[in-house]
Amino acid sequence: MEHPENNEAYKGLTVNQGVEQPSIVNPYLNLRKKPKRRQYSAAEYVEGIVKGDVTMLSQAVTLVESVKPEHQVLAQEVIEKCLPYSGNSIRIGISGVPGAGKSTSIDVFGLHVLEEKGGKLAVLAIDPSSERSKGSILGDKTRMEKLSVHPKSFIRPSPSAGSLGGVARKTRETIILCEAAGFDKIFVETVGVGQSETAVHSMVDFFLLIQLAGTGDELQGIKRGIMEMADGIIINKADGNNVEKAQLAATHFRNALHLFPTPESGWTPQVLTYSGFYNIGVKGIWDMVYAYIDFVRKNGYFEHRRNEQAKYWMYETINEHLRDSFYQNPEIASLLPLQEKDVLEGRATSFSAARKLLEMYFSGLKQE
Amino acid sequence: MEHPENNEAYKGLTVNQGVEQPSIVNPYLNLRKKPKRRQYSAAEYVEGIVKGDVTMLSQAVTLVESVKPEHQVLAQEVIEKCLPYSGNSIRIGISGVPGAGKSTSIDVFGLHVLEEKGGKLAVLAIDPSSERSKGSILGDKTRMEKLSVHPKSFIRPSPSAGSLGGVARKTRETIILCEAAGFDKIFVETVGVGQSETAVHSMVDFFLLIQLAGTGDELQGIKRGIMEMADGIIINKADGNNVEKAQLAATHFRNALHLFPTPESGWTPQVLTYSGFYNIGVKGIWDMVYAYIDFVRKNGYFEHRRNEQAKYWMYETINEHLRDSFYQNPEIASLLPLQEKDVLEGRATSFSAARKLLEMYFSGLKQE
Repeated sequence: MEHPENNEAYKGLTVNQGVEQPSIVNPYLNLRKKPKRRQYSAAEYVEGIVKGDVTMLSQAVTLVESVKPEHQVLAQEVIEKCLPYSGNSIRIGISGVPGAGKSTSIDVFGLHVLEEKGGKLAVLAIDPSSERSKGSILGDKTRMEKLSVHPKSFIRPSPSAGSLGGVARKTRETIILCEAAGFDKIFVETVGVGQSETAVHSMVDFFLLIQLAGTGDELQGIKRGIMEMADGIIINKADGNNVEKAQLAATHFRNALHLFPTPESGWTPQVLTYSGFYNIGVKGIWDMVYAYIDFVRKNGYFEHRRNEQAKYWMYETINEHLRDSFYQNPEIASLLPLQEKDVLEGRATSFSAARKLLEMYFSGLKQE
Repeated sequence: MEHPENNEAYKGLTVNQGVEQPSIVNPYLNLRKKPKRRQYSAAEYVEGIVKGDVTMLSQAVTLVESVKPEHQVLAQEVIEKCLPYSGNSIRIGISGVPGAGKSTSIDVFGLHVLEEKGGKLAVLAIDPSSERSKGSILGDKTRMEKLSVHPKSFIRPSPSAGSLGGVARKTRETIILCEAAGFDKIFVETVGVGQSETAVHSMVDFFLLIQLAGTGDELQGIKRGIMEMADGIIINKADGNNVEKAQLAATHFRNALHLFPTPESGWTPQVLTYSGFYNIGVKGIWDMVYAYIDFVRKNGYFEHRRNEQAKYWMYETINEHLRDSFYQNPEIASLLPLQEKDVLEGRATSFSAARKLLEMYFSGLKQE
């Protein structure tokens, strides 16, 4: 440290050099070996999961969500080994636009089914838009006050990385792990916009759509196809002086459902009103869900739908990979915009442009 | 020839050997050289087409529909050269379930627009189910009595071979040829079942859905998504004591349309009643169609939709080819059912089965 007082001009003010303060952090800390989290083997993961060890389950899910290739290999081995223990659950998809009260509803729904039916509940989520910064994270524990501290529940937010296909795939793999860990009720939450509903619909047994009573034209806002996927539509915030509005909305939805052909399951989708906040009408909803499960278990549709879903995911994975391999090929990626321009400006047909790109792609593959 | 009368037992009845009749076919005909249809060059085809030579157009369309590789090469060259002359038309998709009266309607519609607007009309069709034997052939000339003999019309039935994608591609290419030949109105007919509507919708400017008044629950039968594609819904057979029923049906459709979000074009789809057989209400329909065309030309959606369609077909062709290359690979085709079985019986996840197949496919491509 420099002391200007020690200058010749201030003879009487000479200050002695101070004593250096000791560091507030132990300087030898860096030299200590960091306790590294142990890397378990696939067999150890599976053993832990099947015993119902939630810490082990969490770590395995982290592995599934990892993008590192070595993690992926291990994750696939774990999933494969968990497969024989999976499948013994009912899987419920829950969707609704932002503000419909999904978190509150899942909180009371979860407590209700755990109390009524026992067992264990896992809450997963698919939210391709959640890149941490944007908006609320689905499956956020702090928004499910009671469920998050319940000993029989396991809440996991949406995997944050990648395309919808990738996010959905990870959630589907997580379902297998949760089931192997003895979770016999799986909720998959998704936000009611865009294509994530289709992804959720293709991995659940029952698809529940949460709606709000609005100004009478609430049907307007529903994206095409989503209503047709619903096995049940429930209208939230049917409390206080909102009850009548909610019932009117229910009637509108019932009428609208008449316009669609009867679903393959043979089940006519039902419309109910409830209040998540005041815990009104929740029993009715879950009586409906379990009535549906009974119904489709008896008529064989339950098994049929699960098989179709397994096939769907196999083909979807193949098709997605084929597309990625093409569109992420550097040569194709650089040429595609030029070809597109040629098509738009009438210099090439859509078909000749496609053919040119395909020829380039396949001849490139052979030369690799 | 044998003559039993010449037997020894009938001495007095002896019959002389008759004279052989000359062949009714000229026996030297086979020796003559068959007049072979001349194979035109691409430039000759294009010249003929641009001059509006319908025979040349017909032959070029046959070339487009041919599956022979050498025909395909020539066809692509012709299409490419016709491109600069194409695009100057309005393209109308017309769909409806069997029995809705599509052929009769197209007959009167065609006569109406030719009379009212002049120009030339081409009627094409997409019917992936038509393998000649099954049911009626869309675009069958004999079912469009007046239009088929009209000097300004060109009617071409659906290409019969191949998948929906292939059939649709050929129709889209035929549109280009027809436009180059000066046809400024193109009708594309399709049957109102299955996915062919999507294909037609992706190549026309206006999508017209023909419906029938039924028993009050006519909406039930409409496939999901088809109603949302319609730019106009018209209810046929509004004649005699069927008028009221038709108007009631129209009201139902109007209410149902309210349930969908406003289309991207900004145009609210209209519902009209008419009678194709008695030629009632036809003018109203075409006033609507032309009002739409004016509307979207002004707001820019016309151009936007055509560009989107061109891109759609480029990507669709690429994706279809990528899928075909995979699924029609002999090794994959033989292994796929086994992998599917493993997935269904819980021995492999959808994802690991997909990965295995993909690895095999790509390593096979490299070794070729």
